[in-house]
Amino acid sequence: MEQYSDIGLIGLAVMGQNLVLNINDNGYSVSVYNRTHEKTKSFIKNNSDRKTIYGFDDVSSFIDSLKSPKLIIMMIKSGKPVDDLIEELIPLLKGNDILIDGGNSYYKDTERREIYSSTFGIQYLGVGISGGEEGARFGPSIMPGGNIGAWNIVKKILFDISAKIEEEPCCAFIGRGGSGHYVKMVHNGIEYGDMQLISEIYNIMKVGMNIPNPEMSKIFNNWNNGKLNSYLIEITSKILNHKDENGSFVVDSILDKAEQKGTGRWTAISSLEFGIPLNLITESVYQRSISSLKSLRTNLSQLYTEDTGKLEQNDDIIIHLQNALYVSKIISYSQGFHLLREASENYKWNLKFDEIASIWRGGCIIRSGFLSKISDSYKENPELVHLFSSSKFYNEILNNIESLRLIVTTAINLRIPVPGLCSALMYFESIKSKKLPANLIQAQRDFFGAHGYQDLSTLIYTHTKWY
Amino acid sequence: MEQYSDIGLIGLAVMGQNLVLNINDNGYSVSVYNRTHEKTKSFIKNNSDRKTIYGFDDVSSFIDSLKSPKLIIMMIKSGKPVDDLIEELIPLLKGNDILIDGGNSYYKDTERREIYSSTFGIQYLGVGISGGEEGARFGPSIMPGGNIGAWNIVKKILFDISAKIEEEPCCAFIGRGGSGHYVKMVHNGIEYGDMQLISEIYNIMKVGMNIPNPEMSKIFNNWNNGKLNSYLIEITSKILNHKDENGSFVVDSILDKAEQKGTGRWTAISSLEFGIPLNLITESVYQRSISSLKSLRTNLSQLYTEDTGKLEQNDDIIIHLQNALYVSKIISYSQGFHLLREASENYKWNLKFDEIASIWRGGCIIRSGFLSKISDSYKENPELVHLFSSSKFYNEILNNIESLRLIVTTAINLRIPVPGLCSALMYFESIKSKKLPANLIQAQRDFFGAHGYQDLSTLIYTHTKWY
Repeated sequence: MEQYSDIGLIGLAVMGQNLVLNINDNGYSVSVYNRTHEKTKSFIKNNSDRKTIYGFDDVSSFIDSLKSPKLIIMMIKSGKPVDDLIEELIPLLKGNDILIDGGNSYYKDTERREIYSSTFGIQYLGVGISGGEEGARFGPSIMPGGNIGAWNIVKKILFDISAKIEEEPCCAFIGRGGSGHYVKMVHNGIEYGDMQLISEIYNIMKVGMNIPNPEMSKIFNNWNNGKLNSYLIEITSKILNHKDENGSFVVDSILDKAEQKGTGRWTAISSLEFGIPLNLITESVYQRSISSLKSLRTNLSQLYTEDTGKLEQNDDIIIHLQNALYVSKIISYSQGFHLLREASENYKWNLKFDEIASIWRGGCIIRSGFLSKISDSYKENPELVHLFSSSKFYNEILNNIESLRLIVTTAINLRIPVPGLCSALMYFESIKSKKLPANLIQAQRDFFGAHGYQDLSTLIYTHTKWY
Repeated sequence: MEQYSDIGLIGLAVMGQNLVLNINDNGYSVSVYNRTHEKTKSFIKNNSDRKTIYGFDDVSSFIDSLKSPKLIIMMIKSGKPVDDLIEELIPLLKGNDILIDGGNSYYKDTERREIYSSTFGIQYLGVGISGGEEGARFGPSIMPGGNIGAWNIVKKILFDISAKIEEEPCCAFIGRGGSGHYVKMVHNGIEYGDMQLISEIYNIMKVGMNIPNPEMSKIFNNWNNGKLNSYLIEITSKILNHKDENGSFVVDSILDKAEQKGTGRWTAISSLEFGIPLNLITESVYQRSISSLKSLRTNLSQLYTEDTGKLEQNDDIIIHLQNALYVSKIISYSQGFHLLREASENYKWNLKFDEIASIWRGGCIIRSGFLSKISDSYKENPELVHLFSSSKFYNEILNNIESLRLIVTTAINLRIPVPGLCSALMYFESIKSKKLPANLIQAQRDFFGAHGYQDLSTLIYTHTKWY
């Protein structure tokens, strides 16, 4: 069989389909395969104007159709399906062929699969792709990790299909092993945090101040033109103004159970494994769980019936909300990058934090103007341990933290939950405390378990006979 | 060799030694073995008045000395050492001999080891033991899980050595597999939460109100005679009054870096795996991590130099502190038992929550009067989904939650971190909210990822074309 395709893609769900069209738009011929052939057929039919996308109904002719070294992007459900597919592909591949996992795989799985594939001479890349449907179609943010030789072969394609900011591709090689999927995972964790914070601010405006949807939409739209400029603020503004065919606001007809697929939870678990505090993202994960316990909430709401308070809307409070959201976002990203630094040191990935922030500026869900400041912070000082120490954020934090305190205390007095904002504030108050009451915890541990403690001035380990 | 011992114990660190003395006090002969023989020798020498404790310098004569079926308690470091020891013991054991892991093993390891041991006909128990040094010596709280046949053989000894409350042993069979170690793990997580909350209250009194140690000691002592009656409050009172040989308060000379061994982290990870919100314990784990980042904290404290505020001490605020601590404790235990219920259902352990609360009343670190109320709640209604629904706690929560709101907002205004108290309050506000802003999160997910959402009234999955 004649070999005609530059690259092959397996898995024609929305993301896969859009990625194929994006790759093809960039002048590459693409072979496609999907387990259910119907999907391939209809995809090819819907794109019959395109002459260089080829559909196959069996894996081996799909593989045969690719130029060597063969490049295969897997866009399938993470977990066991990826392992099964790899088993199916390996006998069909030769040394130096390249397997690319473009899904949200768990980074430890990616590390394992890279090693396994290498025993067959196959090069492996775990590639984080963010941007949802639209990103996949017109330019996502791409976080490739794994075999550097493979990267050098596929990088032109990945650069070409990625989003561009000031003509720079939102794609950069992340590092060895599972680092690409790890960074994508933390990206998603940060996304959970952003979404939780926005939803809390929305809740204060809606429940605490009864602001109508179109007015909230305007407020978010204004914010999108300021320091909060970002995709999630932009779509929040659009969502709040979106009506269905009957003229009702869609957002008000949506059940308040937030779903999750696992990357947020993985990020939280990773932070616990490393002992890096990441309370905002973790709280956001827990809040999705709480939201999904709808029947328990309904039952408890009938027992605990205190009314929420009401607040007069005024310009000042709207500015404080904006500031509180902004500084919480700084705190959340500081936590995320702190975790990335720890993971990088632990796994010796040598992550380039300025590049990571930079490629998140476009294409992906958390894209925002603010990421340039993070990128600049690390450009200025690649050894920066914590973003709170960056001159780019010092004044921003100082200028906005009082608004966060005000909004949190206000919300508490209104009895409106603000767990994400609270986590941000508490993290800030703790991590900038020279002295914490952990001396008492150490005393308790020594009292009941003879665990010992360090003396404050000598740092020598000591044990007290307390009784 | 004559077989003379009722039971054998391996691992003569403090907990192991004290457990041997406790077992021997109860009339059982005990063989002991330790990898480093010196420890065995000095232990035997220090207890030369005891005629029925026998030391051995090699494993096989230690094993030979035990009556059949042989009962062996392992009191060694969790992790690989336990696996290594099991490998060493198996060739020396016969069918129906019983291996008992009394350490803080990860419950999934215990499940695996039980299955592995059973392939050699050996019965396995994973036994959580809480109470620290003193508990091990004079009566711990014991949480045995695993093989029920083995339990029936060892239960007399475990009942005898356990703490007693109103003549009832603080020991009850927990369930199959790793359930004993799981329940012990959650116990430890709750302990992290209790300690974090106490340390925050202490911090407000110390930093916010400059109350001298002896006076704080008195306050905690008073609280120990009221609704907060518990071991941790009792020892906090003692710690605050304890001076070294120079007449200085020991607590003030302790470095504020809280250490941790892993059970708190495991509890947090388990809650994330199950999707059960456990934000207070998880925040306590993160706060230990933050405390241990001492040099980062010191650096940041030099950048962010806002002073903490000061508060006049008065009787009212002390009562609010007591109430806030109490209601936060209720919230934390409610989270813990919610997690236990989920684990029980998931693993089909059929946990008896009333018994678990009951055996925690004595011997262990979190022992308190308050656990009787939890036990009674589940006795009244074994199907109780959440402690907030219990009539035993309804009024307690209502009567104290306003104090928690007051203390949290006060602390925020003083710029004193209260992350545990905050987590408790936010959990309460969220989980009793009939409506949360998760509808916006679902709208965002549908906007960027076409994930769909449920319609509020019909519950049918829908997707909106937002753009």
